[in-house]
Amino acid sequence: MDFSIIRVARTVMNVTDLDRAREFYVDALGFIETESDDQHIYLRGLEEHCHHSLVLKKAEKTGVHAIGYKVQEEGQLESLEKLFQSKGLKTKWMENGSQRAIGKTLRVHDVSGIPLEFFTKMETVERMLQRYEMYKGARIQRIDHVNCQVPDVEKAYDFYVKELGFACSEYTETEDDKKWAAWLHRKQNVHDQAFMNGEGPRLHHIGFWLSDPLSIIHACDVLASLGYGSNIERGPGRHGLSNAFFLYLRDPDGNRIELYNGDYLTSDPDFKPIRWDINDPRRQTFWGHKAPDSWFEEATPFLDIETGEEVEIKNPTLKQRKPEFVI
Amino acid sequence: MDFSIIRVARTVMNVTDLDRAREFYVDALGFIETESDDQHIYLRGLEEHCHHSLVLKKAEKTGVHAIGYKVQEEGQLESLEKLFQSKGLKTKWMENGSQRAIGKTLRVHDVSGIPLEFFTKMETVERMLQRYEMYKGARIQRIDHVNCQVPDVEKAYDFYVKELGFACSEYTETEDDKKWAAWLHRKQNVHDQAFMNGEGPRLHHIGFWLSDPLSIIHACDVLASLGYGSNIERGPGRHGLSNAFFLYLRDPDGNRIELYNGDYLTSDPDFKPIRWDINDPRRQTFWGHKAPDSWFEEATPFLDIETGEEVEIKNPTLKQRKPEFVI
Amino acid sequence: MDFSIIRVARTVMNVTDLDRAREFYVDALGFIETESDDQHIYLRGLEEHCHHSLVLKKAEKTGVHAIGYKVQEEGQLESLEKLFQSKGLKTKWMENGSQRAIGKTLRVHDVSGIPLEFFTKMETVERMLQRYEMYKGARIQRIDHVNCQVPDVEKAYDFYVKELGFACSEYTETEDDKKWAAWLHRKQNVHDQAFMNGEGPRLHHIGFWLSDPLSIIHACDVLASLGYGSNIERGPGRHGLSNAFFLYLRDPDGNRIELYNGDYLTSDPDFKPIRWDINDPRRQTFWGHKAPDSWFEEATPFLDIETGEEVEIKNPTLKQRKPEFVI
Amino acid sequence: MDFSIIRVARTVMNVTDLDRAREFYVDALGFIETESDDQHIYLRGLEEHCHHSLVLKKAEKTGVHAIGYKVQEEGQLESLEKLFQSKGLKTKWMENGSQRAIGKTLRVHDVSGIPLEFFTKMETVERMLQRYEMYKGARIQRIDHVNCQVPDVEKAYDFYVKELGFACSEYTETEDDKKWAAWLHRKQNVHDQAFMNGEGPRLHHIGFWLSDPLSIIHACDVLASLGYGSNIERGPGRHGLSNAFFLYLRDPDGNRIELYNGDYLTSDPDFKPIRWDINDPRRQTFWGHKAPDSWFEEATPFLDIETGEEVEIKNPTLKQRKPEFVI
Repeated sequence: MDFSIIRVARTVMNVTDLDRAREFYVDALGFIETESDDQHIYLRGLEEHCHHSLVLKKAEKTGVHAIGYKVQEEGQLESLEKLFQSKGLKTKWMENGSQRAIGKTLRVHDVSGIPLEFFTKMETVERMLQRYEMYKGARIQRIDHVNCQVPDVEKAYDFYVKELGFACSEYTETEDDKKWAAWLHRKQNVHDQAFMNGEGPRLHHIGFWLSDPLSIIHACDVLASLGYGSNIERGPGRHGLSNAFFLYLRDPDGNRIELYNGDYLTSDPDFKPIRWDINDPRRQTFWGHKAPDSWFEEATPFLDIETGEEVEIKNPTLKQRKPEFVI
Repeated sequence: MDFSIIRVARTVMNVTDLDRAREFYVDALGFIETESDDQHIYLRGLEEHCHHSLVLKKAEKTGVHAIGYKVQEEGQLESLEKLFQSKGLKTKWMENGSQRAIGKTLRVHDVSGIPLEFFTKMETVERMLQRYEMYKGARIQRIDHVNCQVPDVEKAYDFYVKELGFACSEYTETEDDKKWAAWLHRKQNVHDQAFMNGEGPRLHHIGFWLSDPLSIIHACDVLASLGYGSNIERGPGRHGLSNAFFLYLRDPDGNRIELYNGDYLTSDPDFKPIRWDINDPRRQTFWGHKAPDSWFEEATPFLDIETGEEVEIKNPTLKQRKPEFVI
Repeated sequence: MDFSIIRVARTVMNVTDLDRAREFYVDALGFIETESDDQHIYLRGLEEHCHHSLVLKKAEKTGVHAIGYKVQEEGQLESLEKLFQSKGLKTKWMENGSQRAIGKTLRVHDVSGIPLEFFTKMETVERMLQRYEMYKGARIQRIDHVNCQVPDVEKAYDFYVKELGFACSEYTETEDDKKWAAWLHRKQNVHDQAFMNGEGPRLHHIGFWLSDPLSIIHACDVLASLGYGSNIERGPGRHGLSNAFFLYLRDPDGNRIELYNGDYLTSDPDFKPIRWDINDPRRQTFWGHKAPDSWFEEATPFLDIETGEEVEIKNPTLKQRKPEFVI
Repeated sequence: MDFSIIRVARTVMNVTDLDRAREFYVDALGFIETESDDQHIYLRGLEEHCHHSLVLKKAEKTGVHAIGYKVQEEGQLESLEKLFQSKGLKTKWMENGSQRAIGKTLRVHDVSGIPLEFFTKMETVERMLQRYEMYKGARIQRIDHVNCQVPDVEKAYDFYVKELGFACSEYTETEDDKKWAAWLHRKQNVHDQAFMNGEGPRLHHIGFWLSDPLSIIHACDVLASLGYGSNIERGPGRHGLSNAFFLYLRDPDGNRIELYNGDYLTSDPDFKPIRWDINDPRRQTFWGHKAPDSWFEEATPFLDIETGEEVEIKNPTLKQRKPEFVI
């Protein structure tokens, strides 16, 4: 299980209208558009030296093709293939050249049905970190994490921690000590991958790192002045869990984006995962603010790596779908 | 009508437990306690050279004794007395020495029944603006404004603008062009005094100026860590009306405090008051966030300047009590 | 002496290259360009509803044509003319229509030789305060003040305070209690007009108000990324005097601009002017940072209202040209 | 060379007066005092779950006893001992219990003579990250890095990269391509350990991470209001190298502390180290500000792990001691 997975590196996601998506992601949020064609827009943050961390793909319906992880050594792709095959999970190779800007890639479904991909190489491009004249909107710095709703958090947790070598920084339990949500990381902050109990597998949100809390305030102002007020779903606020300052947005297709700043270093193996009770009002929002129903209920389906059809969505194993205080 | 009223200068307000109030106002919010006795706490902000801008008075029940305005010349107090008497409104003198730290004071009820007071002198004390080691919590700088719910905004507006010489910076109208709320000022920012349609007269909130938007974020964090999460009623957010960044809090007695930063200069008489439609979702919160019902419904009663009894509360003349989008 | 001068409202200043100036003021600093022709650029801040607060005029050499004050009533322009004539100072009328966007204007030289102008009307335009998508660079909000080096600060102080009705918020004295500098205001913050001892009269800088301290940090980053690093002359820092957070810039012609945020309300006539000793290291920069020699020595000449020639520059009456700790 | 060194974890440093040091580090800067005795103060940041990251030790003279690195597995301490011994470098064991709060420790001198220590265990304590009511001063979050002046940067670089397994994020070269400085990391940001050319070995500074840029501004204000203005040596500013927002302070004994926020993620092995020319004016301070002479010339000596005497200081191999633009 010693796969040197570096970090979550990209998401490949459908949108129904590329121009409308560009207005939201590039003009309003301040992503850098690395390149585009009539079927794709490739986006990155100001800090990123990689070609992209978000691929928007034109399609009739929403759906997520893959969550991509960057791996240190190419030889490990085969080891990963074996692991997933040993669990009876689908795998598929995409050869170098078959996807823009990344090398040979292993696509799989994980134990929850989530389509993942593993690759070692992505083209590098100019990093815009000190091109401050290009900063606008939310001044997106880099991809930070993805959060998925899954029907069985315990099962997902076990697979990522025990098989893939993720570490857990924080987790949420029900009153009878069942795992309701978990924050797992490979890179050294709170998470690359979070799981929460719910109808799934579905992509709940992609989180992007910002440079400072005032960028979130400015993002709200810019979004509102451009007519995107109703796309602000939740926040700004402080998460109890992770301590990050956050904002949740819905893109024009309803896909959820989190703007995220200010969690902490998780380099030390002696750091004990922090347990939160699902009914602690400071867990979700440290200040006590409640998330809206849509935040618990709505998410984006995943697509089968072979058929492209929506992955079947199952009911969660734990009955409690929300903290008590929001019910 | 040329009364040189300078600005709103203080509020005298009941609390039921002085120690509990001190923990909230001084320890959590960062007010400076100028002095106190067993019946009062006198509070000021870091910028204020005046003895206080908020008097907390121990009492069995909540209630506001007076909203105090500072006037430039003492001779005008008599002129003000005549104006209020000419309208058949109650007036009362409080001689120099009868109230801690302020000179001779005229108390009156205005056309909505709100108890006001006018005075010219308040003791001065050390200004703590550059005593940064004393900054904590919200780092309260100074009193900025008060907002009152009144049954007839048009009537209150006319009296303050035409008789007392306030200027209007912004106002809200219903679809049939009736004044639903108005922001009126003597000093050169958006308001000293706001009125909004509702059961009244009641004190809706007292607004205090902060030095920058991040002080509001930090205030939320400190409040939550001290267990005041449920005292955060609304925000943080950006007001469409006034453009200020704001947070609404309820003190331990339920009195509402606004933390406020970032409106604009209103020095120029050629600045045309900005009209907002009550149903414009960007009016209250520029980002589209909805205020909770409590924000529209709950407020603090005023007390009669003679009897000390609660001033009678009347139903508003305009039926619409909230914007449509929050109903 | 009861002239209802509202505030400093504009500066008319030469630049030698309009395109180069536009790159600095509009592209880098974020001024709004209201309009321009082949001889002028008219600039305003995001908060301003007036046509402009800075006129850049194409010329062979640098020089300032006028510091403009807005006055409440047109009738007072004649009273002002009489005042200046009674002191034997030059006056000149510029009729309505002779200057873009402003009405009938009185130009004069003050007791230090500084060209001033007084007018009551300026065209109004759309205020961009909530057009957050247009915010860039330093996000300039509005003109705040001008600072002039004059040979005799005491004389300038007396004229502005006793004849023109300015109030003093703070001042600097030498060890033998001579006025070395003074901060004077009509609007309700620290200054519209400051004077400091030095070769003069010369325009030391024009100060523009920003919305928050982080805008100054971002301005530095943007300036540096656009190659204007050497235009940053001093700061960022906190002024002891005024308590503002500041940055001093030199435009491509060497004219000095201050970015300024966070002073305090000066509405109350009982606020006693704050005295600073010129040799107090916290006066200039609260943190103790020293200003460079250029900041004391370099400034822009004024131009005669009749001849357009440079106003003669005299040596200061006080010998001390800098605080001791920077010598 | 596969030592799983996690990160720089602490510094053990002399101060001549514990009370005076406490006022600076705890009262002004906001470190948490975990515990103290009459010879030591143990300090940590708000984010740290470890017992301390800075030990102040009472002594007659300044001097640094050790820079401490946390290592993942205890077995590697012996491997590290062998490495250092194989290079002819001094090593010394400090058994569990011999130092407060940390386990068995290997002390060594590195190739530049710097005293290092390696340990795997430190007592854990309550993390104060969400105890916002305790935030004050600079709101120190955690130790980030140390920077040492050494006579031969190339030699130090080779040892840390090739023998100890550090990665290089950025480096500075002279015009003839000699390494003048290098930023090396084990954890995933810009550095744990930096080296710069100069008389050495000496500790140039210890860098502490802050949560946001405004904390640095507030720290300056608090330091100045407490009389520590002259302890601010350089900044605030933006580093070109690392992109961090910074402030350099001198403690009451002259030891240098950096407040640091906002570098970037260095998780990816395909990130190419960024080369800077020593004479690039944006390298040190992106905005072009010059560091004072003291910043290049003054530093704290290291102490021998056996004798406790000052480690001999040698002249640097590269003649250029400063960028050209500051000479």
